Amino acid sequence: MPKLDICFSPELLPLYDLRGQVAVIVDILRASSTIVTALGEGVTHVFPVATLEECAEYGQRHGCLTAAERDGIQADGVDLGNSPFGFLDAARPVRGRSLTISTTNGTTALRRSLTAKAVVVGAFLNLEAVADFARQQGRDVVVVCAGWKGQFCLEDTVFGGALAERLAPDFDVRSSDATLAALHLWQQGKTDLSAYLLQSAHVRRLNSLEASEDFEFCLRIDAYADILPIWRDDRLITLLP
Amino acid sequence: MPKLDICFSPELLPLYDLRGQVAVIVDILRASSTIVTALGEGVTHVFPVATLEECAEYGQRHGCLTAAERDGIQADGVDLGNSPFGFLDAARPVRGRSLTISTTNGTTALRRSLTAKAVVVGAFLNLEAVADFARQQGRDVVVVCAGWKGQFCLEDTVFGGALAERLAPDFDVRSSDATLAALHLWQQGKTDLSAYLLQSAHVRRLNSLEASEDFEFCLRIDAYADILPIWRDDRLITLLP
Repeated sequence: MPKLDICFSPELLPLYDLRGQVAVIVDILRASSTIVTALGEGVTHVFPVATLEECAEYGQRHGCLTAAERDGIQADGVDLGNSPFGFLDAARPVRGRSLTISTTNGTTALRRSLTAKAVVVGAFLNLEAVADFARQQGRDVVVVCAGWKGQFCLEDTVFGGALAERLAPDFDVRSSDATLAALHLWQQGKTDLSAYLLQSAHVRRLNSLEASEDFEFCLRIDAYADILPIWRDDRLITLLP
Repeated sequence: MPKLDICFSPELLPLYDLRGQVAVIVDILRASSTIVTALGEGVTHVFPVATLEECAEYGQRHGCLTAAERDGIQADGVDLGNSPFGFLDAARPVRGRSLTISTTNGTTALRRSLTAKAVVVGAFLNLEAVADFARQQGRDVVVVCAGWKGQFCLEDTVFGGALAERLAPDFDVRSSDATLAALHLWQQGKTDLSAYLLQSAHVRRLNSLEASEDFEFCLRIDAYADILPIWRDDRLITLLP
């Protein structure tokens, strides 16, 4: 039976051997939710980058939409902020465009996970797509929480617990204490996920930036249940169902 | 109001600035529980060391009792294993002796925390002693979980949650997601701590070594409620109440 493990911070990745495994990169607020939304709304592929400079460079080189924020607001000189709603604006259709998005925590988590056999992006929005993929692969899975500047984040962890619950019939979710803890936290919070996560430091930080609409959107479980962002060569594309 | 934060692994310590803070080193199974028991039974001071070689060297140089285990059993050439019961054996009184103990995870956590203003050792056995000390100091506190080879450990985390509950009236225990998660796990597990922690990978590992008596002993909350091991120069001593 394959195992599901959870790595609470990219700083702990050296302790995990990802070779032959599936890595699920999670940054619920908001990079992974925004990437799933973008691909769900017809963006063809995504280049996640760490810095604003790379973002501008990719934008010019590949002619793609650019998305970035600094201190919670859209950065200067880019097309979009990091809000999923940027990809839901009928006035600026994104279908058929490519995208580069600057996300510090998410990009770090992703780049450090590239030794894995497969690297996918997970969010509550595409929980079932991730679970499906894991079942099909039948390999060990490690959920890599992007965290907040390397620190433990409640919302990424609770996502790991939600995935563990879905995979429990087919995966060993009891051999890692991190997975057990995430499962407990998810089971405690799932009946009112929004209220539960409102305690989180990161959520309060985000809400103080008047991004509470984003927060509620990011918790819509399976809103894009067949969108699976997967790493190919140098970009995230989506596997069509 | 001072803050209580929890560091889930010594590998994450570079993210914390311990200067001016109180560091509480926790390795419930079994190093911190054993050290509290040793000092509670009259051992004068403890040198925690990482390797068997250091253990032997300290034993010779300081004439102290030596304690170490490898693969769950007492190592060759030392006086005691890592079980707290080694210090409760009337046939071999320990009062007035000094001790050196080899503990890999615990020693790593302790050595990496020495920039803190005060470094103390916490266990369920001396929970109230730790809480008292924290209240007296009125400084920010970081619980440093020794973990298991750098990985997240349920029992150390749950101890952090128990401490957070006791300190909640006087400390900010809601500004760190790690503390929030630990508090939730403790509140979920506390009514039957033994059953709750029996799920933990480390506990199952320990119990398979027929150390289940040790496990139950390590969960005896406040059995040594006035024993506070604190780092002074090169050793742990106990502050008398």
